[in-house]
Amino acid sequence: MAGKLFVISGPSGAGKGSIIEKLLEKDPTLYFSISATTRPKRDYEKDGREYFFVSREEFLDRIEKGQMLEWAEFAGNYYGTPAGPVDEKLRAGCDVVLDVESHGMYSVKAMRPDAVTMFVYPPSFAELEKRLRNRKTETEERIRSRLEQSRQECTHAEDYDYIIINDDLDIAAAEAAAVMTAEKCRTAERLHILKEDKTL
Amino acid sequence: MAGKLFVISGPSGAGKGSIIEKLLEKDPTLYFSISATTRPKRDYEKDGREYFFVSREEFLDRIEKGQMLEWAEFAGNYYGTPAGPVDEKLRAGCDVVLDVESHGMYSVKAMRPDAVTMFVYPPSFAELEKRLRNRKTETEERIRSRLEQSRQECTHAEDYDYIIINDDLDIAAAEAAAVMTAEKCRTAERLHILKEDKTL
Repeated sequence: MAGKLFVISGPSGAGKGSIIEKLLEKDPTLYFSISATTRPKRDYEKDGREYFFVSREEFLDRIEKGQMLEWAEFAGNYYGTPAGPVDEKLRAGCDVVLDVESHGMYSVKAMRPDAVTMFVYPPSFAELEKRLRNRKTETEERIRSRLEQSRQECTHAEDYDYIIINDDLDIAAAEAAAVMTAEKCRTAERLHILKEDKTL
Repeated sequence: MAGKLFVISGPSGAGKGSIIEKLLEKDPTLYFSISATTRPKRDYEKDGREYFFVSREEFLDRIEKGQMLEWAEFAGNYYGTPAGPVDEKLRAGCDVVLDVESHGMYSVKAMRPDAVTMFVYPPSFAELEKRLRNRKTETEERIRSRLEQSRQECTHAEDYDYIIINDDLDIAAAEAAAVMTAEKCRTAERLHILKEDKTL
């Protein structure tokens, strides 16, 4: 039985990362997709851990060949999700989680229509702003730009299959886990059990 | 926020009842619908506990008025799900579970298209037969008739939204609970939170 592909998006500060961490703790066979990038590797980074570091030529070649599930350019560098490792894990029966922005979600859905998508939202946008400001690591300008970007992301929430409200992290992670469990109980995923039951 | 309506079906011996019991333990606000019947009340029964006991005239009148979500006739008596108490609980924000056969599921789906349906299946049909025989309370003829009925029920599995495999009861109940949690995270159920967020 192949694994299932899950896409998790949400504005920065909604707590996507913490939810994914909890999901990975709960299910050690879950594969969290590692992105590929053309930006230079930093000293502390290891190829295949933070990112797969590839050349610009190779990245463009992979896009060309349909080997990227989604990609984007930021500040002159490409970032994206290579299809290879994702498909390999799915074939091995592991579920896969992608952390991508909404434009990435649309691209993944176009290439893998059976992907299940979740949008993580804070209890309110005001709470998101509070969380971002409490980090105290960013300039006012950067905060404003992030908030604007987050507002933009939220306009795409309606195109997701599920919305996870991250007020209490444990509840939010439990909801995301419930979505993953439920999706694997769908009749399309399970009917083969009855069809293959020779005693029926 | 209104509650959600869940329909659970499955051949006898699949363990529907035990799963529903676990769901009710887990969520005390969950309402397990009580059927109405025209059969005479037995001494140990209490109106509104085992069944709502109603006259034949009243039952037929309710069918006429669209006040029965589903109904069937067995051995000259009518049995069915009155819409009133179900709708009342849903309006109060409680989820509702119905234990009905597949013909009842089709009827509920026709009247309440947003109902979510689950079909409980044993690990194999052979296991179902074993469970039925182990009860040792029924004649061979009755067992054969039940098995035939069960096989019939299984032909409808593909029309359900989810299939719950009851091998381990705790896992099966957790899966059913995950379906209920996930369905309440659906974008159609949650988008209003973003729409009503005045800080967004």
